[in-house]
Amino acid sequence: MRIIVDGFGGDNAPGEILAGCAQALEELEVEIAVTGDRDKLLACARERGLEEPFRKMEVLHCPDVLTMEDEPGSILKEKSESSMAVGLRAVAQGQGDAFASAGNSGALTVGATMIVKRIKGIKRVAFAPVLPSTKGFFMISDAGANVECRPEMLLQFGLMGSVYMEKVMGVENPRVGLVNVGSESHKGDPLRQNAYGLLKECGEINFIGNIEPRDIPYGQCDVVVADGFTGNTVLKLYEGTALAMMGMVKDIFKKSAKNKLAAAMIYKDLQGLKKTMNYNTYGGAAIIGAAKPVFKMHGNAQAPAVANALRLVRDCTHSGFVELIAAAVRP
Amino acid sequence: MRIIVDGFGGDNAPGEILAGCAQALEELEVEIAVTGDRDKLLACARERGLEEPFRKMEVLHCPDVLTMEDEPGSILKEKSESSMAVGLRAVAQGQGDAFASAGNSGALTVGATMIVKRIKGIKRVAFAPVLPSTKGFFMISDAGANVECRPEMLLQFGLMGSVYMEKVMGVENPRVGLVNVGSESHKGDPLRQNAYGLLKECGEINFIGNIEPRDIPYGQCDVVVADGFTGNTVLKLYEGTALAMMGMVKDIFKKSAKNKLAAAMIYKDLQGLKKTMNYNTYGGAAIIGAAKPVFKMHGNAQAPAVANALRLVRDCTHSGFVELIAAAVRP
Repeated sequence: MRIIVDGFGGDNAPGEILAGCAQALEELEVEIAVTGDRDKLLACARERGLEEPFRKMEVLHCPDVLTMEDEPGSILKEKSESSMAVGLRAVAQGQGDAFASAGNSGALTVGATMIVKRIKGIKRVAFAPVLPSTKGFFMISDAGANVECRPEMLLQFGLMGSVYMEKVMGVENPRVGLVNVGSESHKGDPLRQNAYGLLKECGEINFIGNIEPRDIPYGQCDVVVADGFTGNTVLKLYEGTALAMMGMVKDIFKKSAKNKLAAAMIYKDLQGLKKTMNYNTYGGAAIIGAAKPVFKMHGNAQAPAVANALRLVRDCTHSGFVELIAAAVRP
Repeated sequence: MRIIVDGFGGDNAPGEILAGCAQALEELEVEIAVTGDRDKLLACARERGLEEPFRKMEVLHCPDVLTMEDEPGSILKEKSESSMAVGLRAVAQGQGDAFASAGNSGALTVGATMIVKRIKGIKRVAFAPVLPSTKGFFMISDAGANVECRPEMLLQFGLMGSVYMEKVMGVENPRVGLVNVGSESHKGDPLRQNAYGLLKECGEINFIGNIEPRDIPYGQCDVVVADGFTGNTVLKLYEGTALAMMGMVKDIFKKSAKNKLAAAMIYKDLQGLKKTMNYNTYGGAAIIGAAKPVFKMHGNAQAPAVANALRLVRDCTHSGFVELIAAAVRP
């Protein structure tokens, strides 16, 4: 298997990306191709003592970089020679089995749709991160690719998410829930009411009905279905609230010598909690619905998170996820 | 000042409601009238040793109760003689200065709109809870009264929220932010794009632009403007995530004898955090835009939370909030 990695996406590129790729080469039995400026990549590899693993990677040379400030549509125009665009074209043309980038999510979504293209029958790709819950993990589908949605799109987000959670994440008979303002079927606006009907009628998923946002952190369902606006709100508020709470607990522990001692006593368990609630543990978000595996790594991912993400990319690709989705939507 | 209280709204009615009213009578220099079945209220007062404060309350007798299972619209039909409906009619007719209930939010919103009526010029009432942040507190406007909104409604939610935070909560020049998927003005769907324009043009508020959900817990703005679907999602996910995190920290503290000792060492500070993050500290949510002060108390409020809520009701009524809103929307 050959994974193409955007060498210049994310806050810590190219250093942490290269280091993560090096770790992946060692641990994952995959080939790696990196996109970006060859000279800069080589210089960076030297600086970090990564010449040897770097020699094992192919470089898809391109001088340009698409930044966080660029418009999503720029990937098709002025940034069509950027490390992200080149990687997407390479995977679309079969030069690799999957593509991963820690760069601009909006551009990656546009690129997945327009360069890699969608699976036949899929109306829209979804941004689908896997996040920690108190009991394990769950997926949001869609967490931001589509701010405006129709009911049949929400049905597909649920279907694709269910296949992913079962085949890639190993969840048996994944519970699919629709984010809504109440549990009863008539709740919400027409989008929710109609999506509820479609999800309920779909025989291929385990639809458990509406899920109220307060139950999401407790892992009440495995696939949280939402329009991209709501899903993005859930994603960002969940991350923000968890971080804010951790910060407040940390502040308490720093308040006095006595508190510092107490912190030292439970340090190991607190680190465990921090790891549980760290979204980097689950490695990244698939852009599901694209005709090849395309992954978004966290923008501030460091080497271990990059390696984690590449493990997920490998498992996803190995599962034949794209073909499974194609089979599921075949009329 | 005379506050009318729904004696049979919420999970702990009438016991905790009566006890909270008794506390309010003692602390707040207000008169209290309670709605509900007179005999049941009297029996409850006796059982809890509250005969003396109960004698000081007026009872607006009505045998019926509107439950959490009732449809919101039932307040105008089969439940028009319930403790909630009777209280709303009483405040509408000037038998009291404000109304508070811990019962069914949907029915209370319908009742505030149809029985108490809206302030002239206000398109929709908003459900506007005040919640804790890491730095203080903030309001969500609207947190669930209107699942479908137009841009001019979001403008009014911001305007009303701003007046409330300034005049009732004492926040100087409140920062008003629009919940959106990105900070730039063009982000989001047409509802967000158009609301952004209206909020920006409005000279009477301190509009700071879009706010991303991850910044909400840090108190980046004082009034979080949202359509009711998004606002309700923010409200419930925020509460749920904070509770889940507190639960996980608590589990760590119970894990071993050593951890229990550490917990004991920082017990007082942890209680402080718990209090900070307890939405009951801020007493309740105003239904802003109604022609009289109408308040929702938390459904599981106990006596101290009820008393806190009534303090807020008193302060809000005292501020002349309704008249200030009426003046702000006058063309």
